[in-house]
Amino acid sequence: MSKGLTTREENYSQWYNELVVKSDLAETSAVRGCMVIKPYGYTLWENMQRILDNMFKATGHTNAYFPLFIPKSFFSREASHVEGFAKECAVVTHYRLKNDPDGKGIVVDENAKLEEELIVRPTSETIIWNTYKNWIQSYRDLPILCNQWANVVRWEMRTRLFLRTAEFLWQEGHTAHESKEEALAETEKMINVYADFVENYMGIPVIKGRKSANERFAGALDTYCIEALMQDGKALQAGTSHFLGQNFAKAFDVKFLNKENQLEYVWATSWGVSTRLIGALIMTHSDDKGLVLPPKIAPLQVVIIPVYRNEEELKQVSVVAEQIKASLTASNITVKYDDRDSYRSGWKFNEYELKGVPVRIAIGPRDIAQNQVEICRRDTLEKQSVNNENLAEYIKNLLEDIQTNMFNKAKQFRDNNITKVDTWEDFEKAIEKGGFVYAHWDGTIETEVAIKEKTKATIRCIPFNNPQEEGKCILTGKPSKERVLFAKAY
Amino acid sequence: MSKGLTTREENYSQWYNELVVKSDLAETSAVRGCMVIKPYGYTLWENMQRILDNMFKATGHTNAYFPLFIPKSFFSREASHVEGFAKECAVVTHYRLKNDPDGKGIVVDENAKLEEELIVRPTSETIIWNTYKNWIQSYRDLPILCNQWANVVRWEMRTRLFLRTAEFLWQEGHTAHESKEEALAETEKMINVYADFVENYMGIPVIKGRKSANERFAGALDTYCIEALMQDGKALQAGTSHFLGQNFAKAFDVKFLNKENQLEYVWATSWGVSTRLIGALIMTHSDDKGLVLPPKIAPLQVVIIPVYRNEEELKQVSVVAEQIKASLTASNITVKYDDRDSYRSGWKFNEYELKGVPVRIAIGPRDIAQNQVEICRRDTLEKQSVNNENLAEYIKNLLEDIQTNMFNKAKQFRDNNITKVDTWEDFEKAIEKGGFVYAHWDGTIETEVAIKEKTKATIRCIPFNNPQEEGKCILTGKPSKERVLFAKAY
Repeated sequence: MSKGLTTREENYSQWYNELVVKSDLAETSAVRGCMVIKPYGYTLWENMQRILDNMFKATGHTNAYFPLFIPKSFFSREASHVEGFAKECAVVTHYRLKNDPDGKGIVVDENAKLEEELIVRPTSETIIWNTYKNWIQSYRDLPILCNQWANVVRWEMRTRLFLRTAEFLWQEGHTAHESKEEALAETEKMINVYADFVENYMGIPVIKGRKSANERFAGALDTYCIEALMQDGKALQAGTSHFLGQNFAKAFDVKFLNKENQLEYVWATSWGVSTRLIGALIMTHSDDKGLVLPPKIAPLQVVIIPVYRNEEELKQVSVVAEQIKASLTASNITVKYDDRDSYRSGWKFNEYELKGVPVRIAIGPRDIAQNQVEICRRDTLEKQSVNNENLAEYIKNLLEDIQTNMFNKAKQFRDNNITKVDTWEDFEKAIEKGGFVYAHWDGTIETEVAIKEKTKATIRCIPFNNPQEEGKCILTGKPSKERVLFAKAY
Repeated sequence: MSKGLTTREENYSQWYNELVVKSDLAETSAVRGCMVIKPYGYTLWENMQRILDNMFKATGHTNAYFPLFIPKSFFSREASHVEGFAKECAVVTHYRLKNDPDGKGIVVDENAKLEEELIVRPTSETIIWNTYKNWIQSYRDLPILCNQWANVVRWEMRTRLFLRTAEFLWQEGHTAHESKEEALAETEKMINVYADFVENYMGIPVIKGRKSANERFAGALDTYCIEALMQDGKALQAGTSHFLGQNFAKAFDVKFLNKENQLEYVWATSWGVSTRLIGALIMTHSDDKGLVLPPKIAPLQVVIIPVYRNEEELKQVSVVAEQIKASLTASNITVKYDDRDSYRSGWKFNEYELKGVPVRIAIGPRDIAQNQVEICRRDTLEKQSVNNENLAEYIKNLLEDIQTNMFNKAKQFRDNNITKVDTWEDFEKAIEKGGFVYAHWDGTIETEVAIKEKTKATIRCIPFNNPQEEGKCILTGKPSKERVLFAKAY
């Protein structure tokens, strides 16, 4: 197949858009801003979900499900939350349609107007804390450690597949605790779970840190995040974990009788990652030939392609291919033998390159004569002839090697693109060039906003365990005690 | 704990409502008609999902995800579909809120009115077939075998937890085929998958059959269903699989080039089961003491409860309990040791009975002295002292026995409640008494509707492999070639 894929050099943004569609991950739908996640993309998401879900359960969480709709008035209860979330959203105002009296089609039945409008959840803190109110009486009911896998809707004006869509899929953890310390520990635990997942399964290196006050989640006292760097030098927030203090408990009047028999407001956290991670995955690893997927989450880890000139050769190859397929399957490797006769082998090579399958095995009559196969790894595109003896073991090791190599390559890129600067001039240059810029800032929202207006750069995070050093703010020259990470971001 | 559960005899409907809430499966929410599925209920759903999902994949299907919203005009395209679905639904008319200029709170921003209203999906045939149009050009693109796990919304006026809620969770399979035969085979395959799942995992016996024209899915040419019988003698439709013919392909202009190089409309099926199955599960097996859950899907299969008078005894019991827990866990049995000191053992016995945990193990000092434990099975409430030797093996067999016994008991009840009648008088009596009534019907919609108006009974299905026999319609006396199954239904 001819991929006709724009290169990253030519137009990074177009390369991304084309790649998502051509590799069969997702496509736009008839509904503005909503995407269709195609089977290949959804299998990738399922693999991510399964691993994350196991991690959540291993850390004591259980899943539950809360309503899609939130009464409008709930948003007004938490002052900063309403500013952040209740504005651009899908509003349900009616509950019935009727046949159009003037002709064809159907129209909204004006007699079926809701007394109070319902908002399609952009995030579920309000409806969940309204529910928790009935679940919590005493410290014996705490902690509550719930997670929800759900769809959410935020009415974005400019959308891009996976990165920013009106509807997206995510998980949102919502926990309730009896003390500030316990809630803070949970907030930190979950950002560590995210970092573990994103680095060790998705192969994306991240920097853990806290958000500046200006970039915090609407309603949070503190937001921890993991920040990744894309190949075009822009940062991407890959996951967040929020310490919500007692804000939502106060907004929804959720008190508990503590061990000292006193009524106290409950402490809260929330944390989430979304299908946006797939965008980060694509932009971290893929190249001009297509996707490059990490073996641990790839929908398909190995593809076997026969190379033949006639039916006799195909038969001969198929015998060996099926044996190899069976032995790989027995080793828990996801493998497909593509013996479709309607496509040439060269077309198939291209197709699976585009789809980022980590390992390709090609088998032709000459390989069989020599009891070997040709193996091509997607990350480096290196080819090698390998003896059939112990092939499953070889592939197992190769998949691990690809996983490690992808992370290391991405980490080297990231590390090479962190620039320390001390003057405004250098700051502007560094932001223009791309990557993380590590610089002093005077700690005020005004300065942060001014920097954003001048350069489009935002503070991505204040890294955990950030070295303390005296310095001067790159914009105002005012004193600063630590550097923070700036970047332009998705 | 005091359960205070209404008995089935006293008030079946109230028994059900109380049981769902008291056993921590689900509760109503602040949003009319929408439920909160609590962790215990959601774990049950996850177990069901996992098994079903594996079955779907084993039969060649993959998951995908389609938009939550459907443009209003899509519903008008398939004439009978719009009648069935587009009426009672949640309608999104606006995409923004703003601060109320007259005071506190937020109001809908009238400037943010959608050009075309969006319907929150009640089912996804329309948006999916609009998508398939772009996926299908030739027979090489067929079949498409997609499934979606999703939330859907149908604005029901009278709701009941799990059985009928405005929002519910389900899966919907949507397949596209090149021939009528293939689509019909798929329709049948999936009703068989559902029957397999519902009978062999949920322990609910079902009757497979086809719906009468009047009870068909809106837009289908044929609807296959599985029908179960609840303890109060009412039927419950547990799953449906629809042969959609070329209706949706025509509505959305989805044609393919067949092997003879001719353009043809694509053939379709759709099939689904929902959280309603949990309602069926409860009403099939549970008793006046609470839930009775089949071991294969129970969130917790075994609970171990210590019986002790002082801390010394608890310590002693805990050593043995932890050993047993470890050995059961090693045998892939889901087990919990509840050593909370804040509740008495009698309270715990009640609690886990209410929650339907299949097996309870009680351990006291006297049991330890005799190297045994007391085992109580939830389905029969029989207690037995069992030696600790090979306990895991014993429990494994016991769980299998409980699973089998629950199915057999439900099947016996169902079989005892199928009444064959030949006169209208007997029909009315039988329907009044409850259960399935197997009777002749003249095959017309008019008669079906008249019977429903007189007795509230509907045709649940025309069983597969239904014996053909000459007879007379119980209402009109007109000739009939086969009996059909009537019942009052949920």
